[in-house]
Amino acid sequence: MLTGEDFINHGEQYYLPGLLISCVILGYHDRQLKILLGRHTGVDGWMFPGGHIKKEEGLSDAAVRVLKERTSLEDIYLQQFYAYGDLQKDGPDWRSSIFSEDFIARYGKDNWLLKRTVLIGYYALIDYSLAEIRPDTFYDEFSWHSITQLPQPFFDQTMLDKALETLRNQTYIHPIGYNLLPEKFTLPEIHTLYETILNKKLDRRNFPNKLLSLGILIKLDEKRKIGQHRSPFLYKFDRERYNEVLNSGEVLVF
Amino acid sequence: MLTGEDFINHGEQYYLPGLLISCVILGYHDRQLKILLGRHTGVDGWMFPGGHIKKEEGLSDAAVRVLKERTSLEDIYLQQFYAYGDLQKDGPDWRSSIFSEDFIARYGKDNWLLKRTVLIGYYALIDYSLAEIRPDTFYDEFSWHSITQLPQPFFDQTMLDKALETLRNQTYIHPIGYNLLPEKFTLPEIHTLYETILNKKLDRRNFPNKLLSLGILIKLDEKRKIGQHRSPFLYKFDRERYNEVLNSGEVLVF
Repeated sequence: MLTGEDFINHGEQYYLPGLLISCVILGYHDRQLKILLGRHTGVDGWMFPGGHIKKEEGLSDAAVRVLKERTSLEDIYLQQFYAYGDLQKDGPDWRSSIFSEDFIARYGKDNWLLKRTVLIGYYALIDYSLAEIRPDTFYDEFSWHSITQLPQPFFDQTMLDKALETLRNQTYIHPIGYNLLPEKFTLPEIHTLYETILNKKLDRRNFPNKLLSLGILIKLDEKRKIGQHRSPFLYKFDRERYNEVLNSGEVLVF
Repeated sequence: MLTGEDFINHGEQYYLPGLLISCVILGYHDRQLKILLGRHTGVDGWMFPGGHIKKEEGLSDAAVRVLKERTSLEDIYLQQFYAYGDLQKDGPDWRSSIFSEDFIARYGKDNWLLKRTVLIGYYALIDYSLAEIRPDTFYDEFSWHSITQLPQPFFDQTMLDKALETLRNQTYIHPIGYNLLPEKFTLPEIHTLYETILNKKLDRRNFPNKLLSLGILIKLDEKRKIGQHRSPFLYKFDRERYNEVLNSGEVLVF
């Protein structure tokens, strides 16, 4: 691992220039959807955590590594959703516009980090209560933010909108929830998860029926008491069937 | 425009190194889905037509330009679907493995075209009878191929599979057909288009009902005689409503 100064001065010897992985880490917990944002050294504003790709490293391997370095989490559903390379002079693909004057004065305007950069966006879905956000040489700060209350300036709004759109579309095509629910959960819990992600109300009766018809849930012989007269049954995912459905592209509609 | 030799020797001065746009051009005509493939100069095999991104050119502008240069078509629905950068030593991201020995001997193994390249895949849907395939400095040959009978060696099978999967998923979320059908068409014609793209049989009654329920089709006061006792009505797209549905992400299920 390069130190911060070495990375800034000589990183292009070890990493692919002009390319950056950007991770939209969506965290769900207790009915809330949050995103992990960082303040990068030398940048006055917030962005998704990212990382460069080593010269001998595959793109998806790099994305897995970046996610692990930032959250300590592994085996997470990580999906590439878009590559950003249009000329937005005020956006993060035009790097010289987001780095501070101090940074540019110190390392020079020809520094490799300031060149035009194509960002390849990945998103991950995690239970944010499980993530250990690690301090990092290249970020001054990391924190979780509600998607309805973002700190400013935030450079990646376009990317956030696209990640949410992709996630919502995916929700219709593939089941989600594996990383986001406890091992045993109630139908109201998965219902709320889907409502939070899709950002709309789903029918109390149709939703569980459609989900159950996929055969991805196993009903357990246990209940959870959540009120005087409410003790819904617990379910767990049928992991094998879940993967089958994930790979088959069956379509859910709510 | 650089000549072939200039481009090969000095292209990295004008184009982003290590990045390539690759266009999966899906052509539909007369119940057949075909793809446009090229044989690149110095490469012994077939691949999707592609092009480099100019240093001052946006990614999607570059994709539009590449499509136009190869097919002479404009205003085409062009969608980015995936960026390829995993280390497939036998695939097109590891360029030195696909260029011929002659090419490498002539231009040197350090030539910029031979370096590791991330491919950004776009797909376009066109009526292939309308495309004028242009001869090109960098391709020895272009031709249309049925997706079930591809010439070998073909370097982009992974990309083709993903493009088709994305197109099929999109078909459930957005209406398609605008570029692929004549201005006036019958319900059996759009039915066949969807069956060809989804590669499955769709119910004779449910399919047109669901499509009509979206309100994107206008029934005309004209019929087309296609047999002794068959004269189906003609329809056209309601362009405004079509765009609304495209943007709203309404979901179709067949």
